[in-house]
Amino acid sequence: MTDPVYSYENLHRYAKSVFIRIGCSEDQALLATDVLLRADLRGIDSHGIARLSGYVRLWEKGRVNCTPVIKVVYETPSTAVVDGDRGLGLVVAPRAMEIAIEKARAVGTGWVSVKNSNHFGIAGYHAMMALPHDMIGIAMTNASPLVAPTFSIERLLGTNPIAVAIPANEQPPFVADFATTTAANGKLEILQRKNQLAPIGWVQTSNGDPTTNPNETRQGGALIPLGSDREHGSHKGFCLGAWVDIFSAVLSGANYGPWVPPFVAFLEPPTDPVGEGLGHFFGAMRVDAFRPAVEFKKHMDNWINRFRSARTIDGQDHVIIPGDPERMMHIERMEVGIPLNPKVVEDLTELGMRLNVAF
Amino acid sequence: MTDPVYSYENLHRYAKSVFIRIGCSEDQALLATDVLLRADLRGIDSHGIARLSGYVRLWEKGRVNCTPVIKVVYETPSTAVVDGDRGLGLVVAPRAMEIAIEKARAVGTGWVSVKNSNHFGIAGYHAMMALPHDMIGIAMTNASPLVAPTFSIERLLGTNPIAVAIPANEQPPFVADFATTTAANGKLEILQRKNQLAPIGWVQTSNGDPTTNPNETRQGGALIPLGSDREHGSHKGFCLGAWVDIFSAVLSGANYGPWVPPFVAFLEPPTDPVGEGLGHFFGAMRVDAFRPAVEFKKHMDNWINRFRSARTIDGQDHVIIPGDPERMMHIERMEVGIPLNPKVVEDLTELGMRLNVAF
Repeated sequence: MTDPVYSYENLHRYAKSVFIRIGCSEDQALLATDVLLRADLRGIDSHGIARLSGYVRLWEKGRVNCTPVIKVVYETPSTAVVDGDRGLGLVVAPRAMEIAIEKARAVGTGWVSVKNSNHFGIAGYHAMMALPHDMIGIAMTNASPLVAPTFSIERLLGTNPIAVAIPANEQPPFVADFATTTAANGKLEILQRKNQLAPIGWVQTSNGDPTTNPNETRQGGALIPLGSDREHGSHKGFCLGAWVDIFSAVLSGANYGPWVPPFVAFLEPPTDPVGEGLGHFFGAMRVDAFRPAVEFKKHMDNWINRFRSARTIDGQDHVIIPGDPERMMHIERMEVGIPLNPKVVEDLTELGMRLNVAF
Repeated sequence: MTDPVYSYENLHRYAKSVFIRIGCSEDQALLATDVLLRADLRGIDSHGIARLSGYVRLWEKGRVNCTPVIKVVYETPSTAVVDGDRGLGLVVAPRAMEIAIEKARAVGTGWVSVKNSNHFGIAGYHAMMALPHDMIGIAMTNASPLVAPTFSIERLLGTNPIAVAIPANEQPPFVADFATTTAANGKLEILQRKNQLAPIGWVQTSNGDPTTNPNETRQGGALIPLGSDREHGSHKGFCLGAWVDIFSAVLSGANYGPWVPPFVAFLEPPTDPVGEGLGHFFGAMRVDAFRPAVEFKKHMDNWINRFRSARTIDGQDHVIIPGDPERMMHIERMEVGIPLNPKVVEDLTELGMRLNVAF
């Protein structure tokens, strides 16, 4: 049985109406919808419209402010700290990235750490904002604790993604966007829905033992940092997740580590916060702050061509350049539509009825 | 049989004499020796004095310039490109990091990409230069191609390490320093010397098949990006290695990917270079470009304490904070000396005789 398919335009109209219904301005609703649905277009279904009702529930709990005053609270020529005023990360993040881009225009690079925000959709959206300016974009965020550092049985980190977007000339841009865990939580959710087993190395039990049960994360287990185990470098994945956490939250004054508020509204945030909301970190670097942009982009074309045309293992046509699969998915889904899991359809239908917005 | 042990002072005196013998100034010989031996002190034996004869052989081939004029060739308030003039990376890198620090002092952050350099020792040394200034330090470098991207059977990337050093207050700093592969090449060299097998996931054969043979990298095989295989996220390790390569070399105008010159002098550099020498990338961020340093460092103490005291799996006392093992090794080796593998002793003795420097 294949999943029902919806057009981008229809999903966009619906999601935007929902954001307006919970109090967002026209502009912010539009932006939040663009960011949210970019995930669906790029095939990162876990971070797209499937999360819409989750955002609404956070708003219902008073944990999201739909009329935020987003402002710079600290700055230097190349840096800023932005207070998101408990806004949707979907609107706070693009504003912070714009500030990074403005600073890069002025002094070569811009770096913005954000506090008092919420989940921001896919990191890649924000990093890619730099591309039309011939800038390299970087985006990171911390997230609800689901990940146990190497040797830990406590969940202290989120899946803390990193995105890096780098422009090329004739080639499409290089866009890496990945959770710093072996597998993103979204991949685990797919296994949970389908009642399938996870590979060893994705999840550990509450005692820290390896397991193939994707439901262990609901029973005190944890996701594992990129690397899977110590012998295969999970301490490096831990370093990456920690790096994201510190840049996103210790630099800005947001909550970090186990203090990051949960995305699911049925779990209360810790009662002893160490900061405000959750945190993000953004960077923009003007390519021509290093060498003429035309030169840089010509060499990026060469880099991409060389890697894509590498000799491959049997059964694979080419090396996958980061961003290629998502870009092709984007084109395909704009044409043929976005498939939604029946449970997501049910959830969106229910949400629409509750808010009196037709799905 | 335990390895013979040498005092830091003796090894320092010897290495410095060697650098002077091949034409380095007193200052540059001192700096190169400090950087090189920091690897031995921190327990990263593969990158320390064991490589001294390798640097000398590169000089003998005319591939290292011991009297480089290191200069900024392009800059903005927050960025610079440095031309290393074919100098030892051991002296080019600290100079570039100083420039990053100067720029951070002026505008909040500083970012320096370097071309025309050589291998720079351990990334951690350079990143840690930021710490006394209450800055966060970042260091990356590309390196000789040994690593096959996911699905590739060609070696297109080096082990391309990343180091991030973050100051705390009462706690020692957070210092992550890791190759973006499952295992560093140095770990493989240890297995090769001891005739031991590698875990599956570290190395692939020339056909791209998994192997436990650590010598496959000498027979057309390759190291594998962090993640080990596609199912466990090796494409993310590839993203990391690619990121390092592009920031270090495409931004600066150095050689990238398979064009990076080999460290071993018996292999000739590619005859169709796409840039000059190899590349590095450095960043310095003033902590107080984001929030008052005392606040930041207090929260770093809290972060480190919380993670270090996490509940652990059976058999482990605590979660390892990045930098802890290396710092303790540094203290120990300053006290009891640095053990050297007999093959390294032999190599250094031979080198000393050849250069007329007593080992």
